[in-house]
Amino acid sequence: MNESNSEKRDTFGNKIDLRVHYARGQILVDSHHEALRAGHARELLRERMQEQGTDSIYDFTGSPCEFPIQKDDLNLPISEVPGGAYFESELISSALQHLGGRDDDKAAVFNRTSAGITATILALSERGKTLVSITSGSPSHPSIKRAAALAGNNFVEVYCTTDLAAAIADTNCNLVVITGVTSELTLMENQEFIEAIRVAKQSGCIVFVDDAYGARVRTILMNQRPAIKEGADISITSVQKAGLCGPRAGLLVGRAKLVEAIASRASEIGLEARTPLVVAVLRALQQFEPEKLNSEVRAGDSLYKHVSKLLGGENINQTLLGPTISEDSLLKITMSRASIAKLKSGIVPAEASAGLGMLMLSNHGIITVNAVGSPGGRVSLRLKTSEEELLRFGGAIMVETALNDSINKLCRYINNSMAMQELILGPMAVKES
Amino acid sequence: MNESNSEKRDTFGNKIDLRVHYARGQILVDSHHEALRAGHARELLRERMQEQGTDSIYDFTGSPCEFPIQKDDLNLPISEVPGGAYFESELISSALQHLGGRDDDKAAVFNRTSAGITATILALSERGKTLVSITSGSPSHPSIKRAAALAGNNFVEVYCTTDLAAAIADTNCNLVVITGVTSELTLMENQEFIEAIRVAKQSGCIVFVDDAYGARVRTILMNQRPAIKEGADISITSVQKAGLCGPRAGLLVGRAKLVEAIASRASEIGLEARTPLVVAVLRALQQFEPEKLNSEVRAGDSLYKHVSKLLGGENINQTLLGPTISEDSLLKITMSRASIAKLKSGIVPAEASAGLGMLMLSNHGIITVNAVGSPGGRVSLRLKTSEEELLRFGGAIMVETALNDSINKLCRYINNSMAMQELILGPMAVKES
Repeated sequence: MNESNSEKRDTFGNKIDLRVHYARGQILVDSHHEALRAGHARELLRERMQEQGTDSIYDFTGSPCEFPIQKDDLNLPISEVPGGAYFESELISSALQHLGGRDDDKAAVFNRTSAGITATILALSERGKTLVSITSGSPSHPSIKRAAALAGNNFVEVYCTTDLAAAIADTNCNLVVITGVTSELTLMENQEFIEAIRVAKQSGCIVFVDDAYGARVRTILMNQRPAIKEGADISITSVQKAGLCGPRAGLLVGRAKLVEAIASRASEIGLEARTPLVVAVLRALQQFEPEKLNSEVRAGDSLYKHVSKLLGGENINQTLLGPTISEDSLLKITMSRASIAKLKSGIVPAEASAGLGMLMLSNHGIITVNAVGSPGGRVSLRLKTSEEELLRFGGAIMVETALNDSINKLCRYINNSMAMQELILGPMAVKES
Repeated sequence: MNESNSEKRDTFGNKIDLRVHYARGQILVDSHHEALRAGHARELLRERMQEQGTDSIYDFTGSPCEFPIQKDDLNLPISEVPGGAYFESELISSALQHLGGRDDDKAAVFNRTSAGITATILALSERGKTLVSITSGSPSHPSIKRAAALAGNNFVEVYCTTDLAAAIADTNCNLVVITGVTSELTLMENQEFIEAIRVAKQSGCIVFVDDAYGARVRTILMNQRPAIKEGADISITSVQKAGLCGPRAGLLVGRAKLVEAIASRASEIGLEARTPLVVAVLRALQQFEPEKLNSEVRAGDSLYKHVSKLLGGENINQTLLGPTISEDSLLKITMSRASIAKLKSGIVPAEASAGLGMLMLSNHGIITVNAVGSPGGRVSLRLKTSEEELLRFGGAIMVETALNDSINKLCRYINNSMAMQELILGPMAVKES
């Protein structure tokens, strides 16, 4: 079992909501209030763009979601049906190349990686069966568990191949999902990854690799091979992550019959990517260079050095693509700076992190997931970007300054629940509540 | 009960597959083969564009799916997060205006109307409850029934408000879906539409109107009011249908709390529209004029006159937006022309219609749903387009000529199952099978 699953309370004694892996507070009560938080972040973003121009914002989410459609592309048939026909073969060959597909494999693009994962599980995992997931420790993407529920599957997650073999043997499982690199950038050892595929295949299961980050992190940074080349039946990657600068979308490659079944199920529900998005995905694949990922690694290193100098290395987790500061550490650091031993505001770590995200956004234009992310997303502060974007901001030293300033500002809010509520949800939401 | 639900066999004695409302054949055996059919149609489309240019194809699907992003828009922040913030308020006000939303209503855009319908039913219809659907006779969109299954709901469809009241009383229903205009363009009387909303509201149900076509057909052509103005809680429309020339997408408006719950559920699965698509939706709303729908009506009238002159009015169903020729009539007409009393090829009506679609596509560049449509879509021949597109093709007289030519060509295939298979699935699929 995963540590954070069995853990019940955070550093401050707040009860963890096991569905999202963090403690709910009195401001971020539930998904509804997280949606209000994201809405307020968009409002701040809009205000900043209006006042200081659209280049006054900086993407530190690690998922910049570009839309690499060029003006000339608008003269090509990029609309739904003609575009689907016009770009199909080019897309398939680029996709197979990117994900190491077999010659007779097929490819499909989905409206999001979560959409592709959902379609895959709905199409392939039979109702009443168990979906087994294996990662290297941190949880798999929430869409996997959610899709299993939607498909009427039990869901079991394991963290080593010994447990994988046991889980497959114990259940009526026909589909195994392997996450080589989680969204927290926890890495599975190459031998363990290969063994996981072997164990699952040997048991007659379909092997589906969630290579959202892994397709590039594993192959370019860890010298591993594409999942398909290791024997996976299907793999999916995120088009806007780890050096691939496309639109938010999921790119899936795998055995023709399986891809077709997945695409067909996706089309019933509306999970497939629209053609203009597919064209943008194609352009992103064509423009991809491993150097872009290396650039993100260097930017992440630089950010880590500055942030750990500022906040102390013991508070920072260094991932391959940049520093992560847990919500608990953030609140601890803020309380310490504000010389508060015990909060009377009832603020929980997720709220401290969201508040910090708002301050970094409104004062410095730094976009992070803890401000703009969807409900249920992770609430740690993560700083991931490219060297180009980092340079545009003024370098890691300026991020250090902005973070320092934002934590100082947060100190003034942290023990005032009304002020925190307005900071996180905006003045409108406070009026309504 | 719907006529086509209780009916078991088509005109030729073939057994109807009740899931799709037409008979399966030996070529179009199942969804897999329908996917191959659509793939072959895209291949023909691609070949034609390569050989004769991208303007050698003509959209007669009634869903032209334009992507009205202008070159200048590419200079605006249309990527995921900044674009979401930048265009949000403009989108909401345009959406509310288009769908007659209340001042405090919210709007959301989905990757397809089916995606919005799925998200709505998953978010609002509780597991174990019954989803009640009412239409004016022809079946509701298949995504409604599918979403009900996914949500763990029973599904009941009725065709009058008396049955609606009974269905609500008999079941534990909390969500009612009302389709004022079906995709076959069957219209519900205004009084019946209003009464359906009243009955459902009175029973405490949430009222969701599938106004895919209706949002414009009902209001502009039938002088009815927007669904929300009649008391519906939520309504959704297709952005690429009935005079609204946007990308394929679903636009939903309704009570803020409900829209937020739907958007939140959509975001978990990946059903929400990506930002570049949202911007295209906004542009389509801004460019919309009722005159565009009137133009489609005139084009449809003109097409109906020519097609009924060619094939006999008794074989044609005149819809508001153009002629529909049932798959059964198509096969009957073809057999009659070919002087075949009884087929020895085993071809079913859906296959005759698909074959005709391929011939119209490859020889004349006419795109119809029976060639390019997704598995499970309706298989009648429907001709819907704008006056502009019709003029570009050379007018309805040229469509008449093209249809006549294509039926003549189909005569040579219709009694040869191998030739029909290659026509519908392409030479590659024939080799594989």
